[in-house]
Amino acid sequence: MTPTSQDRYSADYLDRVAGSLYSSVLSDILDEAGHRQQVMRCDLRPLYPGAKLAGRAATALAVAVAEVPRQPYELLMDLLDGIRPGDVVVAAVQGGVQAALWGELLSTHARTRGARGAVLDGLSRDSWGIEEMKFPVFAAGVSPADSRGRLEVIAIRQPILAGGVPVADGDLVLADEDGVVVVPAAIEEEVVSRALQKVASENVIRDVLRQGASIRKVFEEHGIL
Amino acid sequence: MTPTSQDRYSADYLDRVAGSLYSSVLSDILDEAGHRQQVMRCDLRPLYPGAKLAGRAATALAVAVAEVPRQPYELLMDLLDGIRPGDVVVAAVQGGVQAALWGELLSTHARTRGARGAVLDGLSRDSWGIEEMKFPVFAAGVSPADSRGRLEVIAIRQPILAGGVPVADGDLVLADEDGVVVVPAAIEEEVVSRALQKVASENVIRDVLRQGASIRKVFEEHGIL
Amino acid sequence: MTPTSQDRYSADYLDRVAGSLYSSVLSDILDEAGHRQQVMRCDLRPLYPGAKLAGRAATALAVAVAEVPRQPYELLMDLLDGIRPGDVVVAAVQGGVQAALWGELLSTHARTRGARGAVLDGLSRDSWGIEEMKFPVFAAGVSPADSRGRLEVIAIRQPILAGGVPVADGDLVLADEDGVVVVPAAIEEEVVSRALQKVASENVIRDVLRQGASIRKVFEEHGIL
Amino acid sequence: MTPTSQDRYSADYLDRVAGSLYSSVLSDILDEAGHRQQVMRCDLRPLYPGAKLAGRAATALAVAVAEVPRQPYELLMDLLDGIRPGDVVVAAVQGGVQAALWGELLSTHARTRGARGAVLDGLSRDSWGIEEMKFPVFAAGVSPADSRGRLEVIAIRQPILAGGVPVADGDLVLADEDGVVVVPAAIEEEVVSRALQKVASENVIRDVLRQGASIRKVFEEHGIL
Amino acid sequence: MTPTSQDRYSADYLDRVAGSLYSSVLSDILDEAGHRQQVMRCDLRPLYPGAKLAGRAATALAVAVAEVPRQPYELLMDLLDGIRPGDVVVAAVQGGVQAALWGELLSTHARTRGARGAVLDGLSRDSWGIEEMKFPVFAAGVSPADSRGRLEVIAIRQPILAGGVPVADGDLVLADEDGVVVVPAAIEEEVVSRALQKVASENVIRDVLRQGASIRKVFEEHGIL
Amino acid sequence: MTPTSQDRYSADYLDRVAGSLYSSVLSDILDEAGHRQQVMRCDLRPLYPGAKLAGRAATALAVAVAEVPRQPYELLMDLLDGIRPGDVVVAAVQGGVQAALWGELLSTHARTRGARGAVLDGLSRDSWGIEEMKFPVFAAGVSPADSRGRLEVIAIRQPILAGGVPVADGDLVLADEDGVVVVPAAIEEEVVSRALQKVASENVIRDVLRQGASIRKVFEEHGIL
Repeated sequence: MTPTSQDRYSADYLDRVAGSLYSSVLSDILDEAGHRQQVMRCDLRPLYPGAKLAGRAATALAVAVAEVPRQPYELLMDLLDGIRPGDVVVAAVQGGVQAALWGELLSTHARTRGARGAVLDGLSRDSWGIEEMKFPVFAAGVSPADSRGRLEVIAIRQPILAGGVPVADGDLVLADEDGVVVVPAAIEEEVVSRALQKVASENVIRDVLRQGASIRKVFEEHGIL
Repeated sequence: MTPTSQDRYSADYLDRVAGSLYSSVLSDILDEAGHRQQVMRCDLRPLYPGAKLAGRAATALAVAVAEVPRQPYELLMDLLDGIRPGDVVVAAVQGGVQAALWGELLSTHARTRGARGAVLDGLSRDSWGIEEMKFPVFAAGVSPADSRGRLEVIAIRQPILAGGVPVADGDLVLADEDGVVVVPAAIEEEVVSRALQKVASENVIRDVLRQGASIRKVFEEHGIL
Repeated sequence: MTPTSQDRYSADYLDRVAGSLYSSVLSDILDEAGHRQQVMRCDLRPLYPGAKLAGRAATALAVAVAEVPRQPYELLMDLLDGIRPGDVVVAAVQGGVQAALWGELLSTHARTRGARGAVLDGLSRDSWGIEEMKFPVFAAGVSPADSRGRLEVIAIRQPILAGGVPVADGDLVLADEDGVVVVPAAIEEEVVSRALQKVASENVIRDVLRQGASIRKVFEEHGIL
Repeated sequence: MTPTSQDRYSADYLDRVAGSLYSSVLSDILDEAGHRQQVMRCDLRPLYPGAKLAGRAATALAVAVAEVPRQPYELLMDLLDGIRPGDVVVAAVQGGVQAALWGELLSTHARTRGARGAVLDGLSRDSWGIEEMKFPVFAAGVSPADSRGRLEVIAIRQPILAGGVPVADGDLVLADEDGVVVVPAAIEEEVVSRALQKVASENVIRDVLRQGASIRKVFEEHGIL
Repeated sequence: MTPTSQDRYSADYLDRVAGSLYSSVLSDILDEAGHRQQVMRCDLRPLYPGAKLAGRAATALAVAVAEVPRQPYELLMDLLDGIRPGDVVVAAVQGGVQAALWGELLSTHARTRGARGAVLDGLSRDSWGIEEMKFPVFAAGVSPADSRGRLEVIAIRQPILAGGVPVADGDLVLADEDGVVVVPAAIEEEVVSRALQKVASENVIRDVLRQGASIRKVFEEHGIL
Repeated sequence: MTPTSQDRYSADYLDRVAGSLYSSVLSDILDEAGHRQQVMRCDLRPLYPGAKLAGRAATALAVAVAEVPRQPYELLMDLLDGIRPGDVVVAAVQGGVQAALWGELLSTHARTRGARGAVLDGLSRDSWGIEEMKFPVFAAGVSPADSRGRLEVIAIRQPILAGGVPVADGDLVLADEDGVVVVPAAIEEEVVSRALQKVASENVIRDVLRQGASIRKVFEEHGIL
């Protein structure tokens, strides 16, 4: 079920990743493969309970600004009008300003174009509307304050640092209630395949534990805890 | 629908503000009017999902104390027994002590007197009871620890700094899941009126975007994002 | 209803504590008894709304490590295989590393052995699964990252500092949506007994306040606010 | 050399405390006496190297304000015009605003009246002038911004919480390059007397260690490390 | 002594500002003029005692990056090779990465071109060499780690937010041991002129206070504290 | 000048490292070699200006405790009595408690045994005495509070995480006013050798820049900035 280069954005593939995998199992497999820094900072949280997404990073970098630029939102609009099905907007917001880069109108637009969610190392707003439409957004918080004159997107579709993790445009991103994991492209095929196997093992172990097994024995037999 | 001085506390007016407006649209209009610091710090959050309030600030300032005062709660009780319908208790708790200034019994009393909620740049407790009675409380967190001997209210009905925003007694406060916005009295009439218009525009734009419009075109035509 | 030494772990007793008491009333009684530091830091939060637990601390201390130890999880497995009915795992995770000490498989095992929940001055993971099974876990956050090679338990069943509060193995711990309270063994009997009385008083006061009583009069008559 | 109530402010006594003792030996003796919370937060630092003071707390509480009060500085001026020889101004500044409560002109005035320094759980300014006059000031930082319209003193000569420690007016305060220690009045006589003895012991141990002694033997013999 | 547009960069003028003024007096005058947000965050500190600078902001914005760019340092080198006498490099470093944007070689180059110092809302390195050459650098800290592959300058000579203050290229910046103050160009002439007058007043007051005057009387007569 | 395994602790070798190298040049060479996480957090600072050390890590891990252990200081004393010439005590203090693990008596002992300094991801005390004896100590701060009953060393001579960097016992540690760098044993020989070459290059560049060279040309020719 691993993707060839042409079907990396296929709805089928991404639906299977979102449906069968979760962030902690991906993190475990990445750990085993020696990629131990692929989990974003734990203050990036879903805007509503149950939010989950898997998709391809469409990256943006925003910085704090001191005044409204002559042409605000330029690159942000370029990114949004170029959204492809399977994309997840992943934005790094630098500069520590409390203003929302994302909101309900952008979510409405992004979903219409086929985006599967957004991950913001920064703030969102319109959380009530975003929850209502069940568009999975992960953010460091929310604020009613708009980004105009506070933040400006200065680069899109470039490698960024978001939540402490390097993210390249097109990387597989999976986010759920535990947090956000980024899978580097070079190892995606192997990681996804092994993660699917681990999910199966965990289901077995869960049943064994429910019957009162010693956790030491389970660990010795399965190597999983 | 803007208020004359006598009906600023009218249930009718405040219900319409709470029903038709939300924090992000108010923040946008305040930004346009050059009041760009009217949103409280984003760590002030509702105690339960869906909490929303609009009302008149009944201000209190509490500070950390090192011992139980001879007559604890004096000014807090003055504030509470003087609550008028339409009030929202807005308290700035200074000193970084982890104790709750607010709780379920105070919420019960305040609601009985007509208060519409509370905003605490500080902690609350009894969150389960407050959620049960659906009294909208916004706070920086919760703690089981009582304020007695930890915090004491030292001024009421005075201008305060809460969540980083100056609040005068009687200011219009609106809080929802995105955060807390304060509208200075001098511009309330204009701000509320323009916010109602903006809500209408956003409803139009949302529909246009759902049909797949370019976000750049929408922004060029409506000036809103 | 106070416990003799043999029935401190009885399901009956712990159920009554969890059913009749809550964290804020326990904190108040502890305050009155001069134990004013028994509430954990307010960033320790339930993983899902409504989580509540009362039980006996089964303590663990974990520290940040720089590599996978030869025999990972050793003491953690000792603790888990030794869980008795009535236990609550209370773990202090030191070192500031963002990795989860706890998760769904451990919760499954612990519940099977009779544990009533877990309190982590640290992170958990598998929050979706833990919520599904309604195993009450309180933590400083969640992260998909596993503890292997990041954290290691180095002491169990010893006195620890968790959430800023000293916790001895066997101490009564009660946690609900307001936070986590620890009752030292030496005063447990008295504290629980007085807390039950206070709950009754608060029910009376709540009714009085609902009828519009002055809060000052209520405080003068009942000494409670 | 312990003080009677009339000579607690004597220059002689305070000079001997400042000359013979230091903060760490006082902290050790307070620990032994069961007072383990008498050291202020470690971010309160001297404004210049070598600053040291011992004196009687002249307490003030300042809070963040949102506007310039009608009569600014009222209580601060009361405190300053009432300074007695031996006093140390100890101010708790609550509210997290970056503005300086203290500066060179106040230092000049305070020294003229006999004050021995200042301890601010808050900011100072004019650090260059204060260093030049060698007036020992301990603060959480410096800022050029004045307190007018940002902070206001709202209580003087009352018990305060400064640097996390309760301070009563008149308490003995000793501050040096290690930090700030507060000695409660009730145990001052015993603490000072035992601290002088400990200084003597440490001088002996230092010589023994310089000759290459085992630190375990030194600890076994002297009980000090 | 106020500058015409052609002599704003004159060594004579900037020397007089640095020699006669200091950050707290400039902050006071800016406060009076209603510009109350011109002081940078108080964690921006001089790298060595006694550092002081006055000059024209040469602004740069750097952001965290996840990899070494193809042509690292491009805009930083443009800024540096374009340094004019009187310039002060003012850099906003966004993204929270612990790496040094500035160091001794850049200081050597900048001084050779006539720069009067550097202000970094970020980190420096080579602090020992910078102190040795007495090039006044103000920073949020130091780190041995180079910026290559960690930070990249993405805009120069543009308006930035540094230390929480908007800074336009060419703005007058004064920094000393109290902190960093930015004077907006539109009011520079008036602010500098009034600050010089205030320095004279403070010298008078200092003498009056040294003679034991009541601080209340001094404030009533001079309006300064 | 690279060490064989027997002379890694030689005074001669360590003196040459401390005398010829500095933290930033080591960090640059480690970066080039792909070891980009070898610099400790930038809040670890020297206790006095000019402090510098190079030596072999003698590692300790201390954790927060809730009470005085039966035999306090056990492992700390083992470490200290086993100090060898060339050692640098490197201690990770976990648990966020404000108490000093290190002080003047320990410094006196360690120096007598040949230790070259101490690096604490934690606090020290007796800073005045440590500066007087010029024993280079790097720490996250100072506090008068002793570690007894607050912290306890629970492992020595084991791999630790200090300042965010893995440190193995015996690793080369260099600390100066810029910060603390750890050189993994496997690459020490190559890193030290290349760092010595880089120091020479920087001396050349410094002279070229002093003559007014373009920084772009310097970078193009030397690849160093």
